[in-house]
Amino acid sequence: MTESFPARFARARARYGPLVLGADPHGPLLRRWQLTDDAEGLQRFTDIILKAADGAAGVIKPQSAFFERHGWQGIRALARLIDGARDMGILVILDVKRGDVGSTNEAYAQAYLGPKAPLAADAITVSPYLGLAAMDAFTDGAHDAGAGLFVVTRSSNPEGRLIQSAITNDGGSVEHRILAEIGELNARLAPGGIGPIGAVVGAGEMDPPLDLAGANALYLAPGIGAQGATPEDLARTFAACPDRVLPSASRSLLAAGPDPAAIRDAATSLNEEFRRLL
Amino acid sequence: MTESFPARFARARARYGPLVLGADPHGPLLRRWQLTDDAEGLQRFTDIILKAADGAAGVIKPQSAFFERHGWQGIRALARLIDGARDMGILVILDVKRGDVGSTNEAYAQAYLGPKAPLAADAITVSPYLGLAAMDAFTDGAHDAGAGLFVVTRSSNPEGRLIQSAITNDGGSVEHRILAEIGELNARLAPGGIGPIGAVVGAGEMDPPLDLAGANALYLAPGIGAQGATPEDLARTFAACPDRVLPSASRSLLAAGPDPAAIRDAATSLNEEFRRLL
Repeated sequence: MTESFPARFARARARYGPLVLGADPHGPLLRRWQLTDDAEGLQRFTDIILKAADGAAGVIKPQSAFFERHGWQGIRALARLIDGARDMGILVILDVKRGDVGSTNEAYAQAYLGPKAPLAADAITVSPYLGLAAMDAFTDGAHDAGAGLFVVTRSSNPEGRLIQSAITNDGGSVEHRILAEIGELNARLAPGGIGPIGAVVGAGEMDPPLDLAGANALYLAPGIGAQGATPEDLARTFAACPDRVLPSASRSLLAAGPDPAAIRDAATSLNEEFRRLL
Repeated sequence: MTESFPARFARARARYGPLVLGADPHGPLLRRWQLTDDAEGLQRFTDIILKAADGAAGVIKPQSAFFERHGWQGIRALARLIDGARDMGILVILDVKRGDVGSTNEAYAQAYLGPKAPLAADAITVSPYLGLAAMDAFTDGAHDAGAGLFVVTRSSNPEGRLIQSAITNDGGSVEHRILAEIGELNARLAPGGIGPIGAVVGAGEMDPPLDLAGANALYLAPGIGAQGATPEDLARTFAACPDRVLPSASRSLLAAGPDPAAIRDAATSLNEEFRRLL
């Protein structure tokens, strides 16, 4: 039986630190690295990322959009990145933010979760506008596959507040309700432990606060560095459960590239900072 | 200059009726049609759909998830479906429900909108949990490309109510606010006309009602037939602007397959019913 995603993350964290290396091959980066902005360039980007992560980061997070922009050839490069990383023992969180209803979610789960999936990630992100309660295919699918799920709950961008802070029919906000549902799912799927259903929660001011410790969940915190949040912000936001945070940084680390050794050094240094603070 | 998506839809509607033929190659359907559940099967499914739509439906809506489940080979089949349909003059709404922030949305827009996109659809669906206001890359990108966008606003599944009916900081519900933002975008992008930013709104009871006529938008109404809503439900829901509805049916039509002529007859008959009612 596959070890659970929270258990695999705990091992990776003990060895390397909690850093998630964001693999975002956007056009300007490929140009700066003197790579072609096509599937061939994505393949070379992939080689650099795998060399950079080796021994420095236990988790990578490719953003699907940057591969989708090159169509099926881009997806083929993404599959190679995922398979290459997992062969090296690096965990892969695929940032796809999918979310639909019924059999459509089943199809997405078949695409991204479990050993038979063509893009078999260790965890994926999902978006809950149609209701987390409609996403059994993802939540059960992740549990059955020993994979993780990160439900976008509180994002760090200001435009996200309109929906995320709206008040639901029981008086709690949307983000509170989603976190409560995550807690219920984890209590059912992994009683007494950290469950497979995590949340995406941006580092930053927590107003109103969320009961992060209570949901028995892992937290993916994107955009540390380039998007404005510092490691200190992260430590404050997740003070209640610092060992459950997966801080993701991409641009601030890839800026050291394209030399894999330089990215590796930047990642190692950031992991050391996270180890001190979290 | 490319004609706008609402103008292209109006022409398709005048010729064939408003029906959107949903192209959902889920596993059970492929098996029932005696096709293999792989990229080869998807290719044969695509041939059948194009033959069935020819002369019977002006718009098709492939659901990306069912192609993603076969990895890059599935995406290659999806690209062939999109290109084949557009070569025949059939409009393609690609149901991908993407939605993120900043440069990630730019990458998605590059993947799906405009002549240079590897999967160049006439319109796509997007999901607004991170805020429609964070989605300039989609809204401006659709406008610039002469493409359409359908923002998931009110879904027909009961689990969607938790978020969609939550109350925002100005006292209006999430779905009201999104529709109001769509109306503002359309007033800016297409003053005095029907704009490129549409909404996904399920047919069914409208409680509380939405000001559908005021947003100058097209409405994609999924799941007519198999998911429980009837053409009469549709006519009631969209009584304020019946000519702006794009009713989508998939399973109820594909049930007539795999003979393309039988699907075509079912689509023609449903289009005639919509013409009478809308």
